[in-house]
Amino acid sequence: MLKLYIGNKNYSSWSMRVGVLMTQAGIEHEEIWVPFDAFTQGSAFKSKMATLSPTALVPLLVDGDLHVWDSLSIAEYLAERFPDLQLWPADTAMRAVARSVCAEMHGGFRALRNHCAMNIEADLATQGAIIWRDQAEVRSDVDRIVAMWSELLAKHAASHADGMLFGRFSIADAYFAPVVMRLARYALPVSADIQAYLERVQALPGVKAWIDGAMAEKQFVAFDEPYRMSR
Amino acid sequence: MLKLYIGNKNYSSWSMRVGVLMTQAGIEHEEIWVPFDAFTQGSAFKSKMATLSPTALVPLLVDGDLHVWDSLSIAEYLAERFPDLQLWPADTAMRAVARSVCAEMHGGFRALRNHCAMNIEADLATQGAIIWRDQAEVRSDVDRIVAMWSELLAKHAASHADGMLFGRFSIADAYFAPVVMRLARYALPVSADIQAYLERVQALPGVKAWIDGAMAEKQFVAFDEPYRMSR
Ligand SMILES: N[C@@H](CCC(=O)N[C@@H](CS)C(=O)NCC(=O)O)C(=O)O
Ligand SMILES: N[C@@H](CCC(=O)N[C@@H](CS)C(=O)NCC(=O)O)C(=O)O
Repeated sequence: MLKLYIGNKNYSSWSMRVGVLMTQAGIEHEEIWVPFDAFTQGSAFKSKMATLSPTALVPLLVDGDLHVWDSLSIAEYLAERFPDLQLWPADTAMRAVARSVCAEMHGGFRALRNHCAMNIEADLATQGAIIWRDQAEVRSDVDRIVAMWSELLAKHAASHADGMLFGRFSIADAYFAPVVMRLARYALPVSADIQAYLERVQALPGVKAWIDGAMAEKQFVAFDEPYRMSR
Repeated sequence: MLKLYIGNKNYSSWSMRVGVLMTQAGIEHEEIWVPFDAFTQGSAFKSKMATLSPTALVPLLVDGDLHVWDSLSIAEYLAERFPDLQLWPADTAMRAVARSVCAEMHGGFRALRNHCAMNIEADLATQGAIIWRDQAEVRSDVDRIVAMWSELLAKHAASHADGMLFGRFSIADAYFAPVVMRLARYALPVSADIQAYLERVQALPGVKAWIDGAMAEKQFVAFDEPYRMSR
């Protein structure tokens, strides 16, 4: 059985991408939760992950002897291993664009990632308003995301009842699920179309399961909490 | 014919990855050079790229109507479009690891990227020694790269005369070619085995062609020159 090592569901945005992908696509796996105590050498988290992965990060997928690290590489591995699930769009051109937006996410949107750390259980609307007012780079990250999603949704959403970025659910939606959580929790201003996509994503069973898991954790990890002193 | 849009060969590390991949693999293409004047809105570079790509970045691959952006997505697209070239290793497990190291590169090694901007024509050995002395995060990025390469070379290099990370040349070597240039130009200290790999990569025809192109540019782009006042 495939094993997926993840961090705290409440905070670990990279884990969420792969966790949502596997659950939503119905890929059976054992989920191994490695809670964040600290990211310093000698912490329980780093000590555990260092025995399993050269980067000592989550997510990590273990398939027998094979250890696949980094969320994007794990997504590609799963797409190859389960071709019938069509985790990438089947159409060549759509697949290329889906990979482009995922690669763009993987290497970019740093202002949004830095200022709006994922925190699924928290209501950060006030903080979000301040960030929106003060951080031009966050606004421009969100502008780009909104432009990307609007274009894709206009092109593809109507083609499938899922209403996802490429019609039916794909790696791209899983890859942006943590961005959906950020836009929702920090209540950043988006158009009605985008708001509807945020809601569709949060209603996907694979996303709902992740959110429920996050809510059940009830842990407070101070170094992932720039905006709260306690839960 | 495929069109590849690139920036200055001397400075553009993301362009280099795809340029080296295509040339070394023998994929015919038209190379379109979009020199860096500035990255501000209204610059010639941004104005040109914004008409072609939603991110207005290089590299960009154009195949008929299809515009594929982001180096990692372009690499995947080429791997699919030219399956006979085996741009990824043919073995499933090797391919997964090759994708993991490329994804790791794509999202990481920020200290090395920030402190050691690629500058192919420049001798930055003195600056490299200072960075090495002062920047612990650069040292730890290089430690990880050296550990990764040493392990892969020990496992695979002997299996093929190319002596590349996965035996024969693959996307992984193209993806790390700009790191090779940084280690070489900043003269960061590495073991003899790694030094030999640096030399093998620089001797690949696809890399040599890129370096020759960089040397021929003779441009000085101030915002990409943290360590020089002129050429
Ligand atoms: N590029 C990696 C990033 C993984 C990552 O940074 N994971 C975080 C948790 S979301 C982590 O493990 N942090 C531990 C650390 O920084 O030491 C991926 O896409 O998987
Ligand atoms: N993640 C992108 C990064 C591309 C990138 O940052 N390219 C640089 C040149 S190496 C660029 O176009 N910079 C222009 C800008 O920042 O506006 C990729 O892998 O292609």
